[in-house]
Amino acid sequence: MVQTTALPRNEDGIKTALGVLKQQFGDRFQTGQAVRDQHGHTTTWIETQAPDAVVFPATTAEVSEIVKVCAAHRVPVIPFGTGTSLEGHVNAPAGGICVDLSQMNAVLRVNAGDLDCTVQPGVTREQLNTHLRDQGLFFPIDPGANASLGGMASTRASGTNAVRYGTMKDNVLAVEAVMPDGQIIRTGQRARKSSAGYDLTRLMVGAEGTLGLITELTLKLQGIPEAISSARCSFPSVAAACEAVMAVIQYGLPVARIELLDALTVRAVNAYSKLTLPETPLLLLEFHGTQAGVVEQADTFGTLAGEFGGEGFEAVTTAEERSALWQARHDAYWATLQLRPGAKGISTDVCVPISRLADCVGAAQARLDELGFIAPIVGHAGDGNFHALLLVDMENPQELEKADAFVGWLNDMAISMDGTCTGEHGIGQGKRPYLVKELGPATRVMAAIKAALDPDGIMNPGKVLTPGS
Amino acid sequence: MVQTTALPRNEDGIKTALGVLKQQFGDRFQTGQAVRDQHGHTTTWIETQAPDAVVFPATTAEVSEIVKVCAAHRVPVIPFGTGTSLEGHVNAPAGGICVDLSQMNAVLRVNAGDLDCTVQPGVTREQLNTHLRDQGLFFPIDPGANASLGGMASTRASGTNAVRYGTMKDNVLAVEAVMPDGQIIRTGQRARKSSAGYDLTRLMVGAEGTLGLITELTLKLQGIPEAISSARCSFPSVAAACEAVMAVIQYGLPVARIELLDALTVRAVNAYSKLTLPETPLLLLEFHGTQAGVVEQADTFGTLAGEFGGEGFEAVTTAEERSALWQARHDAYWATLQLRPGAKGISTDVCVPISRLADCVGAAQARLDELGFIAPIVGHAGDGNFHALLLVDMENPQELEKADAFVGWLNDMAISMDGTCTGEHGIGQGKRPYLVKELGPATRVMAAIKAALDPDGIMNPGKVLTPGS
Repeated sequence: MVQTTALPRNEDGIKTALGVLKQQFGDRFQTGQAVRDQHGHTTTWIETQAPDAVVFPATTAEVSEIVKVCAAHRVPVIPFGTGTSLEGHVNAPAGGICVDLSQMNAVLRVNAGDLDCTVQPGVTREQLNTHLRDQGLFFPIDPGANASLGGMASTRASGTNAVRYGTMKDNVLAVEAVMPDGQIIRTGQRARKSSAGYDLTRLMVGAEGTLGLITELTLKLQGIPEAISSARCSFPSVAAACEAVMAVIQYGLPVARIELLDALTVRAVNAYSKLTLPETPLLLLEFHGTQAGVVEQADTFGTLAGEFGGEGFEAVTTAEERSALWQARHDAYWATLQLRPGAKGISTDVCVPISRLADCVGAAQARLDELGFIAPIVGHAGDGNFHALLLVDMENPQELEKADAFVGWLNDMAISMDGTCTGEHGIGQGKRPYLVKELGPATRVMAAIKAALDPDGIMNPGKVLTPGS
Repeated sequence: MVQTTALPRNEDGIKTALGVLKQQFGDRFQTGQAVRDQHGHTTTWIETQAPDAVVFPATTAEVSEIVKVCAAHRVPVIPFGTGTSLEGHVNAPAGGICVDLSQMNAVLRVNAGDLDCTVQPGVTREQLNTHLRDQGLFFPIDPGANASLGGMASTRASGTNAVRYGTMKDNVLAVEAVMPDGQIIRTGQRARKSSAGYDLTRLMVGAEGTLGLITELTLKLQGIPEAISSARCSFPSVAAACEAVMAVIQYGLPVARIELLDALTVRAVNAYSKLTLPETPLLLLEFHGTQAGVVEQADTFGTLAGEFGGEGFEAVTTAEERSALWQARHDAYWATLQLRPGAKGISTDVCVPISRLADCVGAAQARLDELGFIAPIVGHAGDGNFHALLLVDMENPQELEKADAFVGWLNDMAISMDGTCTGEHGIGQGKRPYLVKELGPATRVMAAIKAALDPDGIMNPGKVLTPGS
């Protein structure tokens, strides 16, 4: 595990707050080691830093009460959704109270006529989509994990559909939030657009719980498309595949998904899922539209792909065929883990302008080879966003150190290409140094906002910002 | 004219800052009454509050110097683009220095492969689109006026294309800004998405120059569509037209524009442009896509419109035909002014969930009739956003008072319908009371951010926030 710094603990305050909250919440207040460890567990390689207690509120008023108790005693508050974040977002480096929002999981309202809904933060994206299906609606953001919508908003999540439908920043109309003093605010109403004041919605989206705690979200919805088609095509090189992606985007083809799998990933998937794909870089696409529209879109892609050496182009429309065609992508994570049994997969994410994607992926592959890593790469290519999954022996400190150095090198390279150190995972604990490298003086403005709204620094301390940087 | 409160002036500071800036900027520093009045002029009914001087910087470094001088002497800084904002945004209620950015009008870089560009804030949208045309690209946000892109970002502008392409918040990738202490920051790089830290881009977009001054913008671009079609259809009532709009949006038809003209507007346009449109509510639409796609979209609209009593459906594709079909919309402003020669048109804007649009427009029409106003209504119906243009005799104080009361009533109604007091004009001076009504406690969070970043309140004072509210 990668060590992360512990922060000074306010023992007296924590003790007092624990006493008060235990009395208020009874069974919904837990201090057992297993529960605490699970709530400070991070799905990546950063060591667990457990909170002192976990509390399970049922209402916004209860969240406000918890925050008020913690504010009065200067005790950290760490929000928790499903725990699928990747950069140590739910760790408690100074101890404190984890607020598990899983019991606030009601879909409060669906306004089908306005294509919006209001949900509690513990609703997961799969739960919401199951709820919506009968009404012919869906929520398009799909980060892979069945994350909670509050957590997805807090990390500004995106995933495979972002190239068409945007990220959480584009799909949250407004939030209700409990601020660091316990005050409850609403950042907007249900109008599709507004020029009314500072965009607090977008400030809370991506703030990773460091400015307040999201207790309700009003989300944009989409109608389930009349038709969906999928296509795939193999390319002789990552550069050729990326040129095809650029052509697709410049052409204005409204792809819903356009995913890049590198040759190593394809090899892993062939072995795992008994497929016979050419073991070269692969693009997988999905199109949403009318029956005629999706056929036209897939055909256009086929023509464009051909211009860049694409081979084995295939397009399908039935649900079964689509599912088979996308199997390579769905199985990619588990398949690639088999490339080195016993190793843990460490996922890191950067995002660059699309014109630099081939360079960035190519350089990353060369560097990984040089370092001797097995590390398949999968990308949301239409956004210039990709993940390298480093297969690492967690018991080998030298290897961990090398992996850490690679992550730093990759982030530096993405930043030097006018890109970002994280396209969708967020900063958490792990990416704080790169945020400073990427945005420099702007991080001082972020720190000023944090200090103004949370002067005692109780909201999810040790995340996003590096004190004194 | 509607009076607006003057704020206390820091005479000594202003005098000193004027002296310093005069020396630094020579001819590019002006204090003539005409220039000052023009820069404190607002295109609506709020009285002019001229700055003490106007300075024309040429570089970001010069903007930073100006702000540093003003910060040192606690002198207001008011940014100015083209002066087309509608709610008193460029007024100088406490005097101070107007920073006219019109000389910072270079298109710095176009990255065609990445569909983005970087411009100075004084570039206007028409200038940018002329610059881009040869490359087959365009910037989609069209608020009507040929506004500067810095100003459009600052007011979170949108307009007719927003239903498809979003607003300025969706189309600014990053800004460079001079903060209230003169510090220069960049809020992001060129990646299409990022989860790196607080979303300062969206905080600066819509802040109306109260948190800093935008000196550079990186914008998303679109490929000029292969084909465009336009359609129009008349409806027996506003309610029927709005139901058709809802059907279009729910169907997922990717309309690029869907504009509502009420019967009064159609009557005015018939008279002004010698047209023979049925004098009932009219929808005008535009579709962007492939040749086959736009024909299919227009046909689908025709079918949907028929279900809601639409009549006289017509769809065209050539540039000439499209221009003729949209003439009613292009002429609407000048045509409606002829409904009451000599009167001034006061435009007010609200935005509600689409399901409430018919109710809101209907109630507004009834109220306007009751009050005896001639006030045509035109709406960006796909967003639930509409404008009432009150034709007012500016010399008649009773009429002005009645108009002001109507604006208040309309804003209250929009807010009560889960809508916003401004869909695209911004808060400026005129809408400050409604912002508080709409967002309540959230405005205290806005004030805390303002106080943290601009403790002396020098950046565009008297806009957006109401001290002490």
